[in-house]
Amino acid sequence: MSRFIAMGKSFINIKELAQALNLSTSTVSRAFRDKEDINPETKKFILDKAKELGYYPNIYASNLRGSKSKTIAVIMPELANNFFSLAVKGIERVAQRNGYHTLVYVTDSIYEKEVSIVEDLYNGRVEGIIMSVSGEGNDHRYIKQLKTNNIPLVFFDRVYDDIDLPKITTDDYNSCFNATEYLIENGCKKIAFLVIDKNVSIGNARMNGFIDAHKKHNISPDDYLIVDCKNDLDESYRIIKEVLRSQKPDALVSSVERLAITSYRVCADEKISIPGEVKIIGYSNLSIADILNPSFSTITQPAEAQGTKAAEILFDILKHKPLAQKDFVLVSHIIHRKSTEFS
Amino acid sequence: MSRFIAMGKSFINIKELAQALNLSTSTVSRAFRDKEDINPETKKFILDKAKELGYYPNIYASNLRGSKSKTIAVIMPELANNFFSLAVKGIERVAQRNGYHTLVYVTDSIYEKEVSIVEDLYNGRVEGIIMSVSGEGNDHRYIKQLKTNNIPLVFFDRVYDDIDLPKITTDDYNSCFNATEYLIENGCKKIAFLVIDKNVSIGNARMNGFIDAHKKHNISPDDYLIVDCKNDLDESYRIIKEVLRSQKPDALVSSVERLAITSYRVCADEKISIPGEVKIIGYSNLSIADILNPSFSTITQPAEAQGTKAAEILFDILKHKPLAQKDFVLVSHIIHRKSTEFS
Repeated sequence: MSRFIAMGKSFINIKELAQALNLSTSTVSRAFRDKEDINPETKKFILDKAKELGYYPNIYASNLRGSKSKTIAVIMPELANNFFSLAVKGIERVAQRNGYHTLVYVTDSIYEKEVSIVEDLYNGRVEGIIMSVSGEGNDHRYIKQLKTNNIPLVFFDRVYDDIDLPKITTDDYNSCFNATEYLIENGCKKIAFLVIDKNVSIGNARMNGFIDAHKKHNISPDDYLIVDCKNDLDESYRIIKEVLRSQKPDALVSSVERLAITSYRVCADEKISIPGEVKIIGYSNLSIADILNPSFSTITQPAEAQGTKAAEILFDILKHKPLAQKDFVLVSHIIHRKSTEFS
Repeated sequence: MSRFIAMGKSFINIKELAQALNLSTSTVSRAFRDKEDINPETKKFILDKAKELGYYPNIYASNLRGSKSKTIAVIMPELANNFFSLAVKGIERVAQRNGYHTLVYVTDSIYEKEVSIVEDLYNGRVEGIIMSVSGEGNDHRYIKQLKTNNIPLVFFDRVYDDIDLPKITTDDYNSCFNATEYLIENGCKKIAFLVIDKNVSIGNARMNGFIDAHKKHNISPDDYLIVDCKNDLDESYRIIKEVLRSQKPDALVSSVERLAITSYRVCADEKISIPGEVKIIGYSNLSIADILNPSFSTITQPAEAQGTKAAEILFDILKHKPLAQKDFVLVSHIIHRKSTEFS
């Protein structure tokens, strides 16, 4: 470990490094710039010596010259969540592999925050952006402005359909159609769909899958329920409890993980048996669905793969590789466990 | 929304902005620098007009001048994990409030990755670092080097004890002592402690709490178990299964969440009743511990608060506020549920 022989002393500047190497400062400085005309061996010799002696070029000076920040941003509604933390993991890994840095921004699903975060990135702090949208607000000009400044953006999971940029999504419509049809075909007579924001791209696609499965089986809208829940968990708890009490659905299809979790709690508190009285299936990236009480049937998105794919597409754009397609739809997996068991 | 009247046209440069304002470029450029001598009203006028007309100063040029990146870094062993995703949430929130950007880096607990990430930050990309360490390697000079370059660092959760920098930890020793003593006092005769790396600060403190609770009750080391598990889950599964079969402990204290989860799976597969045959308690930030089968008794760290505190300390340092103390120990909460129920 001779890495730190400069330990304890200050950093040296480029002039001191050049003197130590007996080279001109211009030769030395070329070694720190990409695409410069310099002998690879000389470059390696300079870089190795720089590390040994404690010379680190000022990154902002380098960036100014090359106008590369080697940084990407991830903007998302929440982070402390199984889906998004897995997606960021995938993104950060691809960025690291490409020698890039990853900035994270949480919007809390607030449109104004999203606008201000994006605007703050107009000035070259990042070379590209990966975003899952807040889903609120209809004015998306702050995103279109990115194009003007040559900052590519890739959407994942929650997208704005009116914006023509690459999108990585999952098969929301099909997966919800299939999960719903499974319940219908096994004899459920009154299925409730739990949704927080049916106007957001994914909420909408999932709801349409739910509705169309009923249509296919000639079931009238009177015989199923669309239940509008809230971001606030206590409020959702009250709404779900009321629906279970008064409407007595025999199955719940939850469009987001936390509504299924809330349903589990309502059922435990109200002594409603899962799956005896009500089956539950929901979108979830919970790795411990198998040890819930009862084990939880899930529609699982490939979260880390979505992050990885979004990052790979972004780096393809940054490397000026032509994209074969703009929309990538990854397949979700339905895993039936006890919570949808028919006796 | 007159925010985007410059929509569709290219960005303007500082000269064009100065012309539009009928001001000199030097006056205009002063408005974009902090701490410059300029009339606040003039500054506001310039900044508003800049936004309206689509002028965004090159951030790297600004940084070069002011040498402020307005960015902090979070380095941690993993991200897709209840504890770390909550901690990053807390950090990102404080950073946003201070107008700062948050870079995230995952080391996968690999020492060499940690070294290379830290070294990559020597050059001014960030103003400060918040880090939970990989825990491997004994040579920490790459961290000490940060001081030379005036980049403050705050540790959280997993720390290097040999480095004299601010640390935000939880009461690992006490919480594990208390959880263990509870099991002893309620009649457990052979308790196993599940640990992945007992050399890491927190693994070590928790193990010592476990051991000292036994000492206090005059229980010989022959009557408890320290079980060395692995990062690899399949391997840990085999180890825990073997211990439960051959040693028949009547309680498990798990130093990390995933070993408790693995224990749940072993018990389910081996038809070992929790809490009938074996009680389980463990460190965990699982928000759904209450709906596990059976509900899971947890020692819960204030993860988001730890992130928040670490970020607040870092910003205090960046603002040159004197720190009242260097070590902050936050209190964990023990919540007993069914998995430690005594009949």
